[in-house]
Amino acid sequence: MTELPRKIAVVGAGEIGRGWAALCASAGWPVTIFDSDSGAAEQAMVEVPRRARVLIDFERATSGIVERGLLEFHQGRSLLQAVRDADWVIEAVAEDLQSKQLAFERIEEVADKDAVITSSTSGLPPNDLFARCRDQGRCLVAHPLNPPELVPLVELVPGDFTDPAALLRTEGYLRALGRIPITLKRAVPGFVVGRIAAAVYRECIDLVLKDVIEVDDLDRAVSLGPALGWATAGPHLTYHLGAGEGGVQIFLQQLLTAFEGWWGGLASWQKLEPEEQHALIQAVERAYTGKVAMLREARDRRLNAMLRALEEARSDATG
Amino acid sequence: MTELPRKIAVVGAGEIGRGWAALCASAGWPVTIFDSDSGAAEQAMVEVPRRARVLIDFERATSGIVERGLLEFHQGRSLLQAVRDADWVIEAVAEDLQSKQLAFERIEEVADKDAVITSSTSGLPPNDLFARCRDQGRCLVAHPLNPPELVPLVELVPGDFTDPAALLRTEGYLRALGRIPITLKRAVPGFVVGRIAAAVYRECIDLVLKDVIEVDDLDRAVSLGPALGWATAGPHLTYHLGAGEGGVQIFLQQLLTAFEGWWGGLASWQKLEPEEQHALIQAVERAYTGKVAMLREARDRRLNAMLRALEEARSDATG
Repeated sequence: MTELPRKIAVVGAGEIGRGWAALCASAGWPVTIFDSDSGAAEQAMVEVPRRARVLIDFERATSGIVERGLLEFHQGRSLLQAVRDADWVIEAVAEDLQSKQLAFERIEEVADKDAVITSSTSGLPPNDLFARCRDQGRCLVAHPLNPPELVPLVELVPGDFTDPAALLRTEGYLRALGRIPITLKRAVPGFVVGRIAAAVYRECIDLVLKDVIEVDDLDRAVSLGPALGWATAGPHLTYHLGAGEGGVQIFLQQLLTAFEGWWGGLASWQKLEPEEQHALIQAVERAYTGKVAMLREARDRRLNAMLRALEEARSDATG
Repeated sequence: MTELPRKIAVVGAGEIGRGWAALCASAGWPVTIFDSDSGAAEQAMVEVPRRARVLIDFERATSGIVERGLLEFHQGRSLLQAVRDADWVIEAVAEDLQSKQLAFERIEEVADKDAVITSSTSGLPPNDLFARCRDQGRCLVAHPLNPPELVPLVELVPGDFTDPAALLRTEGYLRALGRIPITLKRAVPGFVVGRIAAAVYRECIDLVLKDVIEVDDLDRAVSLGPALGWATAGPHLTYHLGAGEGGVQIFLQQLLTAFEGWWGGLASWQKLEPEEQHALIQAVERAYTGKVAMLREARDRRLNAMLRALEEARSDATG
């Protein structure tokens, strides 16, 4: 059993930091959030309670526990004050190696010696992130997805010097928060999620820029098509089940030639030029402009409905 | 309003043909299935009723209508007998240009002149598929996903000579079956779904072969992580919502550098060598061997739960 943390510090009050704070507060855990941009931190003092309370409406948290957590939700006046006495410090500053290295260096100077410090990076190398820390044993990557208070997956990526006990403790915290941690066997740039997402995103950009399909039709095609298989079984299992009893071996016999044909034709560019960025932004805005708040609410409602459905289907299966 | 078809002919009794037949029969439509491999066709006579009846358990179809459809579910003794009097002929033979061209040529010789003929190909060029047909106006691609009786998306890809009326009629049939047709603006190899799936699959294979993660952990990471976003919003909308009010423009400012770094490092091979195929098959079997029937049932149950959740969340939103 992991002992529950007495206090969480979240360093960085952007979308991801707010999500971590909402998640931890919704479990009744005391959270202090800090951002060197005090405007961002003050906005978080409004947004985090709102996001934590949405979890009550979604029946993912109970009112009593959320409100107890929110009573102990504070804005840190300084990094020192935020981090002091925290058992778990969550770094969620800008996705940029130098910013994160600096954040780690500063956090480590003031953190309790028993604190575990995790980075929310979506793909920077852990060894580089922790390079300036004296004690890298308590540092590791815990990469959540957006929004962190809803999506269960957290990728865990230890560095070469991470203490296995710090990994175990982080896993315990995450499980106590209802998250599902998956630990990578070794670090690669982008980890697992970022690489797969990058492969998807590049092809989705390319199909729009090549005028094969409009942005909203593409999103509907993915969400009502292959994403359902990926969400219910994952890619490998989807194909293992795709060819009857013979499994992946027969699948490859039947469809490898088709895949090999497609692989050769996929987008392989590595940079999105300014005029392509502009065209992409225009295409996305044509589809969705002025609807961000409404679309986010609808997405979160669908996401919650889907999570509950998956949880019920899984518990039926084991019950 | 599209007039409902008096009879459907399904040519090819593999996984996809059986799914089409189960879907159409579950709507009460008369279906005749034909396969030159009579063993496959006979197996379909058992499997199609089973799969159609699962839709009753899933509350996606009602018993009375399914049983009425199954009363008129027949095995064609010949291609001619199967196709005669059908308003809609669904080609679902092996995914191979020559087999499909030949099937189209033969179907077209015997089909009613008013029949619409659709190919289930997941990515072959429509113009090539229909090249040997006298009247290409009634031919188009209607690509379903696996399993066709559950996944709502159908990609529609007209050829250069497809009559817009044939496209409209196919859309009408699909909507009457509860499917969601998306029409591509132009044909590219693999269409939209195959290309995105190929991009995902290549990276998922690469991560396993490079020993970054085991097959089942990868499947869980995708299904409990990015696939939830793709299934609830699609890739473009996910990123449009990922950076707060600023939308995709701010998202690119914040994360394009990271994506560009990852794009350079993604798998770019175009062939899976025999020893790599062998390693992949071993890794998948290590994770899932001997559990195909159980895993498929669990996948279908989760898929149904997820579809219902999405349908309910969508109708709440508009209600």
